[in-house]
Amino acid sequence: MKIKVLTLFKEQFDGFLNTSIIKRIIEKGLVEVELVDIRDYSIDKHRHVDDTPYGGGAGMLMRVDVVAEAIKDNRSDNTHVLLTSPKAKPFKEEDAYRLLQYDELMFVCGHYEGVDHRVSDYVDENISIGDFVLTGGELATMVVMDAVMRLINDGISSDSLKEESYTNGLLEYPQYTRPLVYDGKEVPFVLTNGDHEKIRKFNLKNSLRETYLYRKDLLEKRELNKEERQMMEEIIDELG
Amino acid sequence: MKIKVLTLFKEQFDGFLNTSIIKRIIEKGLVEVELVDIRDYSIDKHRHVDDTPYGGGAGMLMRVDVVAEAIKDNRSDNTHVLLTSPKAKPFKEEDAYRLLQYDELMFVCGHYEGVDHRVSDYVDENISIGDFVLTGGELATMVVMDAVMRLINDGISSDSLKEESYTNGLLEYPQYTRPLVYDGKEVPFVLTNGDHEKIRKFNLKNSLRETYLYRKDLLEKRELNKEERQMMEEIIDELG
Repeated sequence: MKIKVLTLFKEQFDGFLNTSIIKRIIEKGLVEVELVDIRDYSIDKHRHVDDTPYGGGAGMLMRVDVVAEAIKDNRSDNTHVLLTSPKAKPFKEEDAYRLLQYDELMFVCGHYEGVDHRVSDYVDENISIGDFVLTGGELATMVVMDAVMRLINDGISSDSLKEESYTNGLLEYPQYTRPLVYDGKEVPFVLTNGDHEKIRKFNLKNSLRETYLYRKDLLEKRELNKEERQMMEEIIDELG
Repeated sequence: MKIKVLTLFKEQFDGFLNTSIIKRIIEKGLVEVELVDIRDYSIDKHRHVDDTPYGGGAGMLMRVDVVAEAIKDNRSDNTHVLLTSPKAKPFKEEDAYRLLQYDELMFVCGHYEGVDHRVSDYVDENISIGDFVLTGGELATMVVMDAVMRLINDGISSDSLKEESYTNGLLEYPQYTRPLVYDGKEVPFVLTNGDHEKIRKFNLKNSLRETYLYRKDLLEKRELNKEERQMMEEIIDELG
């Protein structure tokens, strides 16, 4: 996969692209990332990229001529162009899987104060990571890149993908590692004695309990099988 | 405000802390940020911080002894300790305002594969930015820091805060800046002729339309006044 990022702040990506799993994915050649400075497409000698809004209002907007030229100059016919914008349903894990299908992604990082509306004519999809305001689209872009790129990484085993949060619609069960006792807190005995069926049931029930406690909304979107329904009744009973 | 970040990847924060608005907020002394390497609290000579899960399963978990010691050594009585985790309702703009009340925040960046469950006893609040999986808690931490820190910045005017997305429960209306015509696309005439009442109505109606088109769920959470209700009827009529 090839990813191009159009931004006013290329340097903000340094740490992200040079750390841990993402760094390894790039070094292995699984994803090629190119950063493009939108300011290179400014049309005046002062390298302006924004201007005041028509009709008044606070803040500055990124100009359509600058941004659209940057998009046109860097996209191919196969590029799927994404613009960070609040005008989208918040990004979810299933969107990360959906974006995997493209050979080329382009992220256009909006200014937090706004982008001339006409830019949307040059974009295939708006992307938002949630209902909060950030100083720019750069962090949102990194979040989506991270969620997509990790799925491409052959360093993450498919077992690991299968077990992780969200993919089965429940929160993960509590997990424990060494030491067996810390600060008076012990690892649950069942996890240490090797009875795999007991461990499976213990973990499944805990997964249901965590989801019930922290993200009831996820349970509304998921059908429970007979074993899960029975466990859920026990949980509700136990919690009083 | 003081913010401490406990992470295995301090270098991932370089770009974020040294760019644009966030850089200025730190330079002005409005927020003091300290990065702490969790690995400094490892207890063996190989500087391990994680281990395999009890009861089996893929991946490695961060150890409670390492992480809890790092938290205890860096927190004060006034510190509000946040752990990145899927076990939380997704972060929203109102949470950014809520976190402003603390003098000291501590972010503990979890490993994407997991953290020993006992760590939660040393944490005041779990924080998630959405229903997707990232390679680590670092980007989620930066997102929350960005959302909070920008509210502290005296460089963002309160007018600008007032007008932006989400604060009034609607998406922002489309905005336009120079040039007046680009690629055959014109700025709407009403925005260019200075009639403030017409501009207000035009923008409000567009704001309602954008919200209706892209985020109907936001409308369910917000009561419309009489003017807005009438506009909404027109919009539904116009869209057929």
